Amino acid sequence: MHHDHVESHLKSSATLTDIVIGMSDGLTVPFALAAGLSAVASSHTITIAGIAEIAAGSIAMGLGGYLAGKTEQDHYKSEMGREYDEVENLRHVEIEETKEFFANIGLSPELQDKATAEIAQDKDRWVDFMMKYELGLEKPDPKRATHSALNIGLSYIAGGIIPLSPYFFISDATQALKISVVATLVCLFIFGFFKSKITGVNPVWGALRVTLIGAMAAAAAFGVAKLFEQ
Amino acid sequence: MHHDHVESHLKSSATLTDIVIGMSDGLTVPFALAAGLSAVASSHTITIAGIAEIAAGSIAMGLGGYLAGKTEQDHYKSEMGREYDEVENLRHVEIEETKEFFANIGLSPELQDKATAEIAQDKDRWVDFMMKYELGLEKPDPKRATHSALNIGLSYIAGGIIPLSPYFFISDATQALKISVVATLVCLFIFGFFKSKITGVNPVWGALRVTLIGAMAAAAAFGVAKLFEQ
Repeated sequence: MHHDHVESHLKSSATLTDIVIGMSDGLTVPFALAAGLSAVASSHTITIAGIAEIAAGSIAMGLGGYLAGKTEQDHYKSEMGREYDEVENLRHVEIEETKEFFANIGLSPELQDKATAEIAQDKDRWVDFMMKYELGLEKPDPKRATHSALNIGLSYIAGGIIPLSPYFFISDATQALKISVVATLVCLFIFGFFKSKITGVNPVWGALRVTLIGAMAAAAAFGVAKLFEQ
Repeated sequence: MHHDHVESHLKSSATLTDIVIGMSDGLTVPFALAAGLSAVASSHTITIAGIAEIAAGSIAMGLGGYLAGKTEQDHYKSEMGREYDEVENLRHVEIEETKEFFANIGLSPELQDKATAEIAQDKDRWVDFMMKYELGLEKPDPKRATHSALNIGLSYIAGGIIPLSPYFFISDATQALKISVVATLVCLFIFGFFKSKITGVNPVWGALRVTLIGAMAAAAAFGVAKLFEQ
């Protein structure tokens, strides 16, 4: 029963997952960059660098997500063509592979033969079966790539504005950094919490991990920028 | 036969995949950031901002990869505990779910019953079966998370140094940008080519897509920085 729950949950939350991914990355990298630059630059420079990073990151992540989705579709199509070809022209090989699947899950030789014979009756069904259980490929949703790209890209922008906004209004970079750190760590904790809920990890523990990664990235960027300042 | 090939290929190239992912992202984002800042800042500022971004991005991506790996392990463990519990205490539900699996792949009611009876004989095997084919979860490699984090993080750094290096040596940001654009687009094409080979897409077409994403991210960052310069 919990499986139905998990599955429906996972499907309805594909959008939510994209948003949380985009937003937590958008919070982390522009945050760390701004923190790093606070060691060496003015609020004005940090604002411009931050906005350039948000533009670059959202496009790279968004289009990256789009590309990954398209690649998945191409890959699925080409593998499906191959399977149809093999079912047609290398029937004995496919029969062996289907038997092997049933052997691997623990069926007796007798049932392996019977089950294989039944599945091989319907070519479409057989190919579907091979795609899913031999190759482990799910049929990709054709609209997923575009939606995913938009969701991730826009969430990256929304996430990135949070650590950057103090620098818009406060000209002293060190002062802006303090507010940025507090606001971003709070948001990272909240998003880490939801991210963990989606993936089924202990939410508080997961939230602490995500927050810690953000803090470490920011501290490293700050340290490295200080080091290279001279 | 091509399946064995694909599978062994995919396993041996897990490291390669990490490297290509880290490197192509490391090429894209620091490249776009540097290009954006070239509209408004000196080579010295761009170098520091770029290094801060590489530190931030490599930690965020590396630790992000580590976290994803750990989450996958936690998720697998908790689901496995649940399955053992259900096989023990909700045997009739699990029997129904197992039958449903065999019904979905197209077996006759008679074989559904027989196959389910055989699988349900061995508890460990049954749970393995449910994990893999009902929940679609593969047993994660425990060392994978740490390796993946290191590979992605280090490749991000290696990738990021390429677009940034002209700014180390050329004080005129516009001149440095020109070399950075050429060097980075060439590298993006090469990495796009290998990335496509790994995922089984047409390599030249895939390489062009990856290069285009990098170019668009850089152009957007440049445009946005120019816009906010005033």
